[in-house]
Amino acid sequence: MLIDDPLDPRLDDIRDLKHSDTEKGLVYGEGPLVCERLIASRFPVRAVFGFGGRLATFLESHGEDLARRDIPVYEITREIMGQVAGYDMHRGLLASADKPDPMEVGEVIDTARTVVVLEGVGDHENIGAIFRNAAGMGVDGVLFGASCADPLYRRSVRVSMGHVLRTPFAHLDGTPTTWQRSLAQLQDAGFHVVALTPAHDAVELKDAVRDPDTGEQYDKIAFLVGGEGPGLTEHAMRAADVRAQIPMAPGTDSLNVATSAAIAFYERMR
Amino acid sequence: MLIDDPLDPRLDDIRDLKHSDTEKGLVYGEGPLVCERLIASRFPVRAVFGFGGRLATFLESHGEDLARRDIPVYEITREIMGQVAGYDMHRGLLASADKPDPMEVGEVIDTARTVVVLEGVGDHENIGAIFRNAAGMGVDGVLFGASCADPLYRRSVRVSMGHVLRTPFAHLDGTPTTWQRSLAQLQDAGFHVVALTPAHDAVELKDAVRDPDTGEQYDKIAFLVGGEGPGLTEHAMRAADVRAQIPMAPGTDSLNVATSAAIAFYERMR
Repeated sequence: MLIDDPLDPRLDDIRDLKHSDTEKGLVYGEGPLVCERLIASRFPVRAVFGFGGRLATFLESHGEDLARRDIPVYEITREIMGQVAGYDMHRGLLASADKPDPMEVGEVIDTARTVVVLEGVGDHENIGAIFRNAAGMGVDGVLFGASCADPLYRRSVRVSMGHVLRTPFAHLDGTPTTWQRSLAQLQDAGFHVVALTPAHDAVELKDAVRDPDTGEQYDKIAFLVGGEGPGLTEHAMRAADVRAQIPMAPGTDSLNVATSAAIAFYERMR
Repeated sequence: MLIDDPLDPRLDDIRDLKHSDTEKGLVYGEGPLVCERLIASRFPVRAVFGFGGRLATFLESHGEDLARRDIPVYEITREIMGQVAGYDMHRGLLASADKPDPMEVGEVIDTARTVVVLEGVGDHENIGAIFRNAAGMGVDGVLFGASCADPLYRRSVRVSMGHVLRTPFAHLDGTPTTWQRSLAQLQDAGFHVVALTPAHDAVELKDAVRDPDTGEQYDKIAFLVGGEGPGLTEHAMRAADVRAQIPMAPGTDSLNVATSAAIAFYERMR
């Protein structure tokens, strides 16, 4: 259905989207790939918006499913999008969804073999990249410790290529000084907690993921990674079973947090 | 020296910088860390610009060196910066430099043991991230094949944390269809050329970097990586000694090109 009145209330989900991303409490998928993943996710989809050609192509594969689930589909023009949302939707397609109830930590770790735990990762792009890398290399879940950015922010969803909508995640309880207790929950569930650090006295990553007695990788591993700049807090470090470093050339900077995590996931998958 | 006239010609290096990054043919370092690396690099520094406090701090460590080399230092205000350059210099410090003569491929590979060769990497941020990761994990040089973005663009320099100014790089000759001949130059110099691909029938990365007879890593390795989306051309693939894949979870997307390269560098350093 073509909507050509910018004041139409059916466009409220995307109204002033540029500046009110999180205020609405909704989640957005942009572009065909992420919209497809949103529709297939646990997130209750509210509506799909798109430009003529792009929307028509998308509906060829998904129109029937959307109709069956009574999800409204609104065709808009680039001009209306600009007027209503305040930005240009380059990918020509966007879907809105409600946030489902948050998952419990138990739900995320119950059947997981590899998880990543984030502390102080405040950058939406890094959060998105970590989800993308986690999905690509078989990580089963993401846990958020203290001071992390919202994974459901539009930029995170986009950079993750929609994987924040698919990979289970949950928030660990606690303030920065008490959340190490939450890490004990992981250890109780059998996870070997590996903290990534640029410290040169830490164990090399390839050894940190292996039981020194058998040489085999631990059955369950939780990688703990900290924000760019400060890295992990001492509280987090102390709660870990081992501190692991990625070997670096002398006199260089630490790697970006999403890149470090990707290398840890690779070591795990390798 | 404080400059408070936005029309002062000594500010020409930063005039309308927001929109004329490359037109001036100059290179820019932003922030104390990158400025420091620019000053220590082979790039002939033209001038340093900064806000009062930031500039004073920087000059404590570098003022003497700049004076000895007759490099002018200009103090400006945030307002002047905004008026002249057209953007806000968050880091409060910026240095301009001329581009030196390009390096020859031979200079880059002569003493190198590990290099990365880029084809079709058109994103400045990815170029910058590849340099950052290369420097962090001991890669000796970067070679540019066809259709790559300019590593000396401001965004690349920034994302690389100044490593494009330190890590040797050169451009391989040739059009997309002939530049495989340039890869022969690498092979003639003893490099084992490893092409990264998401193809599932490729050799696993950890095996691709090793001589199957000895189990040891090849002495010299060139990693060949292609742009996000299309990946490497068939021409590049055919010129490689081996096609290598990073193991991925089923049904996921390929990794970002800078992340893939980082994992290859890690495998090399590991």
